[in-house]
Amino acid sequence: MIDLERVRKSLIRQEDSIVFSLIERAKFPSNSSLYKSSEIPGLDGSLIHYILKETEILHSKIGRYESPEEHPFFPDGLPLPLIPTPPAKSPEFLHAAASAVNMNSTIWKFYLEELLPLFTKEGDDGSYACTAACDINCLQALSRRIHYGKFVAEVKFRDAPEEYGPAIRAQDRDALMKLLTFTDVEEMVKKRVEKKAMIFSQEVNINEKDGDCNGSNKQQNCKIDASVLSRLYGEWVMPLTKLVQVEYLLRRLDK
Amino acid sequence: MIDLERVRKSLIRQEDSIVFSLIERAKFPSNSSLYKSSEIPGLDGSLIHYILKETEILHSKIGRYESPEEHPFFPDGLPLPLIPTPPAKSPEFLHAAASAVNMNSTIWKFYLEELLPLFTKEGDDGSYACTAACDINCLQALSRRIHYGKFVAEVKFRDAPEEYGPAIRAQDRDALMKLLTFTDVEEMVKKRVEKKAMIFSQEVNINEKDGDCNGSNKQQNCKIDASVLSRLYGEWVMPLTKLVQVEYLLRRLDK
Repeated sequence: MIDLERVRKSLIRQEDSIVFSLIERAKFPSNSSLYKSSEIPGLDGSLIHYILKETEILHSKIGRYESPEEHPFFPDGLPLPLIPTPPAKSPEFLHAAASAVNMNSTIWKFYLEELLPLFTKEGDDGSYACTAACDINCLQALSRRIHYGKFVAEVKFRDAPEEYGPAIRAQDRDALMKLLTFTDVEEMVKKRVEKKAMIFSQEVNINEKDGDCNGSNKQQNCKIDASVLSRLYGEWVMPLTKLVQVEYLLRRLDK
Repeated sequence: MIDLERVRKSLIRQEDSIVFSLIERAKFPSNSSLYKSSEIPGLDGSLIHYILKETEILHSKIGRYESPEEHPFFPDGLPLPLIPTPPAKSPEFLHAAASAVNMNSTIWKFYLEELLPLFTKEGDDGSYACTAACDINCLQALSRRIHYGKFVAEVKFRDAPEEYGPAIRAQDRDALMKLLTFTDVEEMVKKRVEKKAMIFSQEVNINEKDGDCNGSNKQQNCKIDASVLSRLYGEWVMPLTKLVQVEYLLRRLDK
């Protein structure tokens, strides 16, 4: 059974995945050729567009997007799974309208245009495939986390339908957003992801005290600037998660 | 220029990637259906075989295997890159015979048969695509690390050709293995990766002291058993890296 505790644990665990994926992407320089529109025959748009789209086609064949936790960036024309979908262990938890909510075009845009320049160094080392694989891990981890707002919203709605009902019936986005905003919790989450980034990106030596990332030689020894994680959550992850929640709740009483 | 210091740094950085990739795989249960031979039309062997092979075909199109650091698991029939290979910034560092050394069939076998059962819980949650994506990250990180032995060997050879020359000319594997074995260093590496696994897999709380993984509630709060990393390095990563070095050096004086 999905309850608030399970949702909370998943959100916290997903923070680690996001931090790991950004640290791994930061191994490579910006490699901007990957993101430029390409003139090469057989490629549709940029290299990153091509490789993500083809990866989604492949993953779709083994059922990735049958899961309500997974959302494709390029949903048009995805193939059906080659394998039978495992029988659901319980009735669908989310309302059927959940599938109408997909924020991936917004995630794609902020990731490529705003986030990447914050944590990658200018340069081109030619490692396009490895860099793209890291980008895909980042994009998928962010997408999973942000769309997990559907589960957050469903749990909250089930816990207090009388609280959300009036705003849903009035289709009042602002009222819903207000009900879903807890500034103290958001500040705590920002601090936690920043701390995770410091701990997970530190250089570990067996004979020394750890935690250099907290000290003066921060820039020298850490693999990523931890404040980027706080900013990522404050500016994009949490606002978009709330938007997912609002969009989901607006449809929650649809027949 | 590639020197011993740069090689050492890369090896240390790659430890972090390996630890991250195993922690991410440990999110999912064993999902053994992924590894069983499949009867489904269109699939060649197991699902994991299919998805890794198709991923390699895709990555090959954007030049992954043009890099001497990358080695395919299924090299037969890979397509040529769609994009022009970036011009090499320096003359090839490795001897041309490097491409003859590929340990991936051994890596594939120990990963699936021996390592996975050590750090995944029995069970099947149906997340085959996400699990396979994690497996691919693990396999590629291990392959990169183990084949980096070619760079290690080349640096060592250039630093002391007179030390390695006689054993190479005599094609004496045992003598080469002896020259490449430093038990103290290996023990230190095992301790370091175990420490990394403890630090990176801990549960981070903003108001508490970190490092629960070192304490009594180890099993409860950590995402992976850190001793698995020590064992992975001691039993597979370091022995196979040395084997890569020996195989490379045996060919190092070929015309």
